[in-house]
Amino acid sequence: MKPYLHEVKYYETDKMGVTHHSNYIRIMEEARIDWMDQLGYGYDRMEAEGIVSPVVAASCNYKKTTTFKDVIEVEIKVKQLSEVKLILAYTMRVGGKIVCTGETVHCFFDGGRPAVIAERFPSLYEAMLATLSA
Amino acid sequence: MKPYLHEVKYYETDKMGVTHHSNYIRIMEEARIDWMDQLGYGYDRMEAEGIVSPVVAASCNYKKTTTFKDVIEVEIKVKQLSEVKLILAYTMRVGGKIVCTGETVHCFFDGGRPAVIAERFPSLYEAMLATLSA
Amino acid sequence: MKPYLHEVKYYETDKMGVTHHSNYIRIMEEARIDWMDQLGYGYDRMEAEGIVSPVVAASCNYKKTTTFKDVIEVEIKVKQLSEVKLILAYTMRVGGKIVCTGETVHCFFDGGRPAVIAERFPSLYEAMLATLSA
Amino acid sequence: MKPYLHEVKYYETDKMGVTHHSNYIRIMEEARIDWMDQLGYGYDRMEAEGIVSPVVAASCNYKKTTTFKDVIEVEIKVKQLSEVKLILAYTMRVGGKIVCTGETVHCFFDGGRPAVIAERFPSLYEAMLATLSA
Repeated sequence: MKPYLHEVKYYETDKMGVTHHSNYIRIMEEARIDWMDQLGYGYDRMEAEGIVSPVVAASCNYKKTTTFKDVIEVEIKVKQLSEVKLILAYTMRVGGKIVCTGETVHCFFDGGRPAVIAERFPSLYEAMLATLSA
Repeated sequence: MKPYLHEVKYYETDKMGVTHHSNYIRIMEEARIDWMDQLGYGYDRMEAEGIVSPVVAASCNYKKTTTFKDVIEVEIKVKQLSEVKLILAYTMRVGGKIVCTGETVHCFFDGGRPAVIAERFPSLYEAMLATLSA
Repeated sequence: MKPYLHEVKYYETDKMGVTHHSNYIRIMEEARIDWMDQLGYGYDRMEAEGIVSPVVAASCNYKKTTTFKDVIEVEIKVKQLSEVKLILAYTMRVGGKIVCTGETVHCFFDGGRPAVIAERFPSLYEAMLATLSA
Repeated sequence: MKPYLHEVKYYETDKMGVTHHSNYIRIMEEARIDWMDQLGYGYDRMEAEGIVSPVVAASCNYKKTTTFKDVIEVEIKVKQLSEVKLILAYTMRVGGKIVCTGETVHCFFDGGRPAVIAERFPSLYEAMLATLSA
């Protein structure tokens, strides 16, 4: 898996001169979408198939500030994969140094009912399992 | 009509220490939605009725910078109201001084076809006309 | 203490039709700034005095979706107040129902060094303590 | 000059299912920063040298909607270059079709006073002139 790169935009900074902390939640979404594309089951396909996958929880631990033009490298690992829940862990680095770590929790709804990941998305499930042993 | 008030949020500032210029486009949208509510035909009702009203054009002339906690007072005037097009002019002030002026152009689609404003929204049309002579 | 009200803006929604999850982090910031104003020690004054107060961590648990025009009522409680660390807990409700809960962790730097809250901001410290027993 | 590419992010869409119109102003900024980098005089260097370059005006004409995962290709042309003012014109395309055109007006301040572009930034000025005859 290739890490996702996000170059900090001017409009993502705030008057403290650093990337506003809310943007890391967005950067994690960008990285997650790219990660799913790499796993071969894009978020657009999921939506086209009528799946709704809300973010159940999200958190960030801010270690170092970043700013305009910094290139944030985001690495994603599956932290937990159960029947109906997926927990992803994010490590964000600039120049090799950790600037932020985060976590998101996801579930999947198919026609309004919780979907069992391994049954509804077997290939995605296998691909995610494979990243665990990589 | 009551002017719309927007207090600048911390996350709306950028590393120059001022409100990022893109946010005025959003503030104009907030003010426009409030203005339509005051005219008695809210944007949520319009959407519920299946009307799609894209912004065709938008522009801003930035006069003075604003920053965190500034209260921007937005005044809207109908600049042009034709059969299928609406042009709104915005004056944004802080403490009585103009900080930005703007314009947006709108049209309305009903079931994918352009809607004649006076026919499809007669009460909104009358209300907008009334603001012209106020 | 008065709860903070945030009416969801059109631009805060996403193509799923709901408030994008990243915006709750921003709404928590808005509420926190209002809360500090109510405690009599505004964030602008803190910045003017050269204090830098980074968000060390932030998290959200999303319970129900919200959308355009929903009015989110944010209640803040001090969860932990130590010498150099402040943890705030947020409860966000629409129409009395909880839509999201969150937490933020803060510390304070004065001239680049960690500030002891009770010493550097005695009145703010007392005001925060008072909310605990309220 | 290489056109700038922006892939539309999920959080840039709104409940209409399309890219929110305010984001094009941000995309134009991203493209402009990339364009200045290509011209050899990056915005970060300009800021480091104490230059302040506010956006004096910005406008967009929206032609077609775009949405999540669309790749917007932004082409920039110098529309006007006078002693103290720079006007840039933007053409944004998806799959070769124009989705939006825009314009921004800029001036430059050095130590609070308007800077004559050709004198203060001779190499940038020459590089911009060169794009005109390309």
